Amino acid sequence: MKVLILGGDGYLGWPTAMDFAAAGHDVTVADNYMRRIIAEETDSEALLPTPTLTQRAAKFKEVSGHDIHVRIGDLADPEVMMSVVAEAAPDTIIHYAEQPSAPYSMRGFKEARSTFKNNLDVTFNLIWAMIEHAPKAHMVKLGTMGEYGTPNIDIEEGWIDIEHKGRTGKFLFPRAAGSLYHTTKVLDTDLLWFYVRIYGLKVTDLMQGPVYGLSTDQADLDPALVPNFHYDDIFGTVVNRFLVQAVAGIPLTVYGGGGQTRGYLNLRDTLQCVMLAAQNPAGEGELKIFNQLTETFSVNQIADKVQSVGNQKGLNVEVKSIPNPRKEMEEHYYNPTHSGLIEMGLKPHYMTDDVVSDMLDRIIDAKDRIIENRIMPRVKWK
Amino acid sequence: MKVLILGGDGYLGWPTAMDFAAAGHDVTVADNYMRRIIAEETDSEALLPTPTLTQRAAKFKEVSGHDIHVRIGDLADPEVMMSVVAEAAPDTIIHYAEQPSAPYSMRGFKEARSTFKNNLDVTFNLIWAMIEHAPKAHMVKLGTMGEYGTPNIDIEEGWIDIEHKGRTGKFLFPRAAGSLYHTTKVLDTDLLWFYVRIYGLKVTDLMQGPVYGLSTDQADLDPALVPNFHYDDIFGTVVNRFLVQAVAGIPLTVYGGGGQTRGYLNLRDTLQCVMLAAQNPAGEGELKIFNQLTETFSVNQIADKVQSVGNQKGLNVEVKSIPNPRKEMEEHYYNPTHSGLIEMGLKPHYMTDDVVSDMLDRIIDAKDRIIENRIMPRVKWK
Repeated sequence: MKVLILGGDGYLGWPTAMDFAAAGHDVTVADNYMRRIIAEETDSEALLPTPTLTQRAAKFKEVSGHDIHVRIGDLADPEVMMSVVAEAAPDTIIHYAEQPSAPYSMRGFKEARSTFKNNLDVTFNLIWAMIEHAPKAHMVKLGTMGEYGTPNIDIEEGWIDIEHKGRTGKFLFPRAAGSLYHTTKVLDTDLLWFYVRIYGLKVTDLMQGPVYGLSTDQADLDPALVPNFHYDDIFGTVVNRFLVQAVAGIPLTVYGGGGQTRGYLNLRDTLQCVMLAAQNPAGEGELKIFNQLTETFSVNQIADKVQSVGNQKGLNVEVKSIPNPRKEMEEHYYNPTHSGLIEMGLKPHYMTDDVVSDMLDRIIDAKDRIIENRIMPRVKWK
Repeated sequence: MKVLILGGDGYLGWPTAMDFAAAGHDVTVADNYMRRIIAEETDSEALLPTPTLTQRAAKFKEVSGHDIHVRIGDLADPEVMMSVVAEAAPDTIIHYAEQPSAPYSMRGFKEARSTFKNNLDVTFNLIWAMIEHAPKAHMVKLGTMGEYGTPNIDIEEGWIDIEHKGRTGKFLFPRAAGSLYHTTKVLDTDLLWFYVRIYGLKVTDLMQGPVYGLSTDQADLDPALVPNFHYDDIFGTVVNRFLVQAVAGIPLTVYGGGGQTRGYLNLRDTLQCVMLAAQNPAGEGELKIFNQLTETFSVNQIADKVQSVGNQKGLNVEVKSIPNPRKEMEEHYYNPTHSGLIEMGLKPHYMTDDVVSDMLDRIIDAKDRIIENRIMPRVKWK
């Protein structure tokens, strides 16, 4: 495959790029370093040093022999997007190029606006770059399980058959997200579904749950290849944050009641899912949607798991509830279907004690780098 | 009420401004003349001359004694929006400020992008101008029935109760629009629903069908006050277009089979509906949605009606099917609920023979101004 990865500098983008290159595909990555800039602005840099994309691509070439082509530019600028797509001439485009922090998107007008404009403009520009330069390419778009919110009915994979007053129809599963970031992905879905229907584009939308982990086959080849692992309140997802708190000797901060339940997956499974999606493209005018998670946990269950494994290692982990900075239900029904990717061949890496223990070991090695004051929530939902 | 009308130069915006001012409210209108500029670019000017907003406001003051404050500026610029909302200090904001042409939005990348960016940026800026300068104000947003598309089930008013695998939930009624313009309004709805839920804004979203007519109590006071009546393929809605074709002696051009069914309403009823919505505001954190139409017709039924009334006036009206430039179903189920506005007090003006006859008379008076080559479709859906 000729693969173009937009947002190739990200927590998922970079490991994905290495994974596709290692599998023998021709890989180009593009990024504007927006996340790095926000991380600097908000004092939220990753735990481990992450060299620039160009430097990482050079190191990866050195240790693996595989090329990754790098383009630095702002994909929210249509001219940049058009030229990147035209030059890469991809058959597969993986779209991660969005501002991914929910708290950042809820910080104020400036941050909301930059999230809104970046995420929507990049998706819009990509659609048109495909129409004009790659109409037969397949887009693999990273959506989020957060698009659905926490409805009182089972969450199907993207679509739902509705029976109403004796008639039936098939519709996008209703969405109601809990942050502006997640809402931009709802808008992406609506926009993609329109252009898929009318222009015959091929799109797979992966509704992904929170990802954890910092190990992949390629990332483990050299310390310079590690994914940018965030533990701060802006970019750190809950599992990664708890692991760092356990190592730093800070109580695991459960937001509110801790009954908030989500579907999680290991970084290694994100790579599998994206590869499977790319290998099984949508047809013309088809929007395939999969729920990308392997197991569901409440926040309290994750805290218990990290505490139990941490204590076995002598870390003396405490758990503490703090006022919830978000507006969200703390007790709710949650039953998402997630069989599609399993049926395509996904072999899940579950969050076993061994997996948690390995992640803790890696963080213990970097313990001196932990900066404690970036862990507690600095952004409150209005 | 202190009323701020965004998009106050439009087919609906200007009559709405006069209607609220005549009812004794304090009215400010804002517009950037985007529609006028597009009309010039695409050779699609309105049938009758429409002076600038400033000129129309002066004429309206002269003939009615009522003031309308005018602000010309681009509301897609956040600084302009913030200053307009802060200075007007409205308790009611009526949001019409969107590029309203479906064909224009489907013309190519440039037109799609300007529609997408204008419509989404204006809505986003308005939300934040309300959060920062008018958090207690009530927004009356003009959506469109086109957001729903033509589903195989009854269209409820904005919301639907779904029973699924033995559990139930209430959701936004699923949307699937047929043009990028209509899709921007789907995205508006998603965005408004998010900010209403999380920030407690008060919003009423009016899902309006195609509007017809060129007469209102205030517009009839002076020729300079007429709404900008379009009959071209870019801005002209189907009823207005057929009326002009009947007068010009051009066969009424039915797109394809003509079974396309929509919900229509008289311009006078738009004024009633918007007034009723303003007088019955949504509560904090409430998104009220009404389907704004008074009766449904297929395109063929409208053609028959215009032909029949036209022939009674000796116009010798022909009807002719042409290849459909749009991608849409030409035969479909269509049953929208629309009882909410009636229950609030709407007294419909139906499309009677007298109403059609009066519209034809007004157009006959302007027959010399009709430019025939702007009627046939110049934009095809890909």
